[in-house]
Amino acid sequence: MAKTKEDLPGSSRETDCRFLRACRGQPTDATPVWFMRQAGRYLPEYRAIRAKHGFLEMATTPELAAEVTLQPVRRLGVDAAILFADILLPLPAMGAPIRFAEGEGPIIERPVRAAREVEALRAADPGDLAYVGETLRRVARELPPQVALIGFAGAPFTLASYLIEGGHSKNFERTKTLMWSAPELWRALMDKLVDTTIGYLRLQIASGAQAVQLFDSWVGCLAPADYEAHVLPHTRRVFDAVAAAGVPSLHFGVGTATLLPLMARAGGDVLGVDWRLPLPEARRLVPGRPLQGNLDPVALLAGPQAALAAARRILQEGRGGPHVFNTGHGLLPETPVEAVQSVVELVHRGAPRA
Amino acid sequence: MAKTKEDLPGSSRETDCRFLRACRGQPTDATPVWFMRQAGRYLPEYRAIRAKHGFLEMATTPELAAEVTLQPVRRLGVDAAILFADILLPLPAMGAPIRFAEGEGPIIERPVRAAREVEALRAADPGDLAYVGETLRRVARELPPQVALIGFAGAPFTLASYLIEGGHSKNFERTKTLMWSAPELWRALMDKLVDTTIGYLRLQIASGAQAVQLFDSWVGCLAPADYEAHVLPHTRRVFDAVAAAGVPSLHFGVGTATLLPLMARAGGDVLGVDWRLPLPEARRLVPGRPLQGNLDPVALLAGPQAALAAARRILQEGRGGPHVFNTGHGLLPETPVEAVQSVVELVHRGAPRA
Repeated sequence: MAKTKEDLPGSSRETDCRFLRACRGQPTDATPVWFMRQAGRYLPEYRAIRAKHGFLEMATTPELAAEVTLQPVRRLGVDAAILFADILLPLPAMGAPIRFAEGEGPIIERPVRAAREVEALRAADPGDLAYVGETLRRVARELPPQVALIGFAGAPFTLASYLIEGGHSKNFERTKTLMWSAPELWRALMDKLVDTTIGYLRLQIASGAQAVQLFDSWVGCLAPADYEAHVLPHTRRVFDAVAAAGVPSLHFGVGTATLLPLMARAGGDVLGVDWRLPLPEARRLVPGRPLQGNLDPVALLAGPQAALAAARRILQEGRGGPHVFNTGHGLLPETPVEAVQSVVELVHRGAPRA
Repeated sequence: MAKTKEDLPGSSRETDCRFLRACRGQPTDATPVWFMRQAGRYLPEYRAIRAKHGFLEMATTPELAAEVTLQPVRRLGVDAAILFADILLPLPAMGAPIRFAEGEGPIIERPVRAAREVEALRAADPGDLAYVGETLRRVARELPPQVALIGFAGAPFTLASYLIEGGHSKNFERTKTLMWSAPELWRALMDKLVDTTIGYLRLQIASGAQAVQLFDSWVGCLAPADYEAHVLPHTRRVFDAVAAAGVPSLHFGVGTATLLPLMARAGGDVLGVDWRLPLPEARRLVPGRPLQGNLDPVALLAGPQAALAAARRILQEGRGGPHVFNTGHGLLPETPVEAVQSVVELVHRGAPRA
């Protein structure tokens, strides 16, 4: 990216923000960087709060959620804060209670598998998620002007997979079976998830989110033809609504090498990819689109030398166009904080040209 | 594929076998079909034996292993039998005992993480795996001449990942860390795994295996640059040895869309892909190479209509060159036998031209 800073329309806050400029395909003085799950267990200050509060309690209490959202900004000097929340938070507001069991991940109390269970769900009233708006307002007040505030939501497919499977899944048997064998029921479920997600993201934008990321974390389990037929139209409805709200959007999934052009059609100003798909190859697949990624988070566990070598490669591979540096999946709990700090410094300093 | 049968060199058994002809890129009268994990829990006759014997006992007792290898041939009319075994069987012969815990998957009793643990491993003496040769000889005696007998082994990377992690892994933290931070140790471990695998596959070929498949099941967790630097040279040594032995080889992994050209360079007459990578796209990546795959095994759970529609699509997409019909990963325990039977019939009958 060019080192010059241009004067461009927008508030001075937005003009000063590397992350938002890169999302819009504008030149930046350095590559912006943040990390998925940057607010998490690898930070001692996070663990100190987590020791006293349950995960869901933290995510639904604005004071606590705002504090852990801000922790990595103070500690790392990243270019964006991302709301501390969980993609499943809207589900209880739809009528599907959730809980987080220690060591087991999320559990949907009453999985959704039949017509009457889909009918019993409602599109969430954003008022039931007002606590998320309050968290964002608290964060926005504290955040330096050059640091962007990112909101997020789960994409309809990934949310549907949790609702149908009842939690994490390895093979997504029930999700795919419902999608293939009961397409009307699938559409009805996706419609409610899309409406919920649109309302939820509008609430976040109205509360201070300057960009939003849609996490379709598990969509990489699908063949492209299935994505195109059963996911793309629904995800596109979410991105169309975000575009109308005027903030940049990011579209992320894992293992999406063969889905990326379809995901680009569904929407997202920025496409997030993991380390399996090198950035130059991703640029070939979605020409002209800003990219986000794609350091393997495990590289941060492999010692300073390996971590910096891997980060340098990503930085160089990202040079073909607008690039937001990130990991290709969330930071792992065992990540050394120093490794993350040194990668932020490297990215801001810029790697020597290859 | 052309419907004509040509007279070509080779034993009459091999000339008659659709599977072996397709592996060699020769025309066949119908698309050959078999399934990964076709000998498994979805078959009542398998469960009847499994009820009386442990998994490892079944895999290491030639009489039992031969019987379950033959079960799907009788039941389904597939074009190939694959040895009933486990990719981890060579590990105990290397000095790394394993066990299979109910519901937990395989466990390596003493994970390999440091230099002295790598040094303590030996390349397996194929004599310690003689029971696998005996299983293959028993199967070869029973198999109709038109049905091929496939041997197999785990690829060095996937075996290393089990040894290092101690079992299944989600993020392969320890494997990648060792690979990146201790490259000499990694090479020493890979060398022992390659030597073991070559000896093991030669034993299988000498015992009647007419083709061998190398399962690099978890290699899809790697970035292409890491595959090229740390895996390709080792895997290539295995395929070079198999090529010298004169039987066709198949190279399989999951989620390998961005690795496929490198996997093709490592070797394998046939490249196996999963449903994430459509066969026409795979052909573009590795032109001229016979392909194997790539039905989503979950499609077999979704009712007869969805299963046949999905199989028909794969069959049509496979038409651009030599194709072995298979699932893109192993059959799932809840698969209805009738769904598998009807797909075999469809493949042999041939789908109407699109």
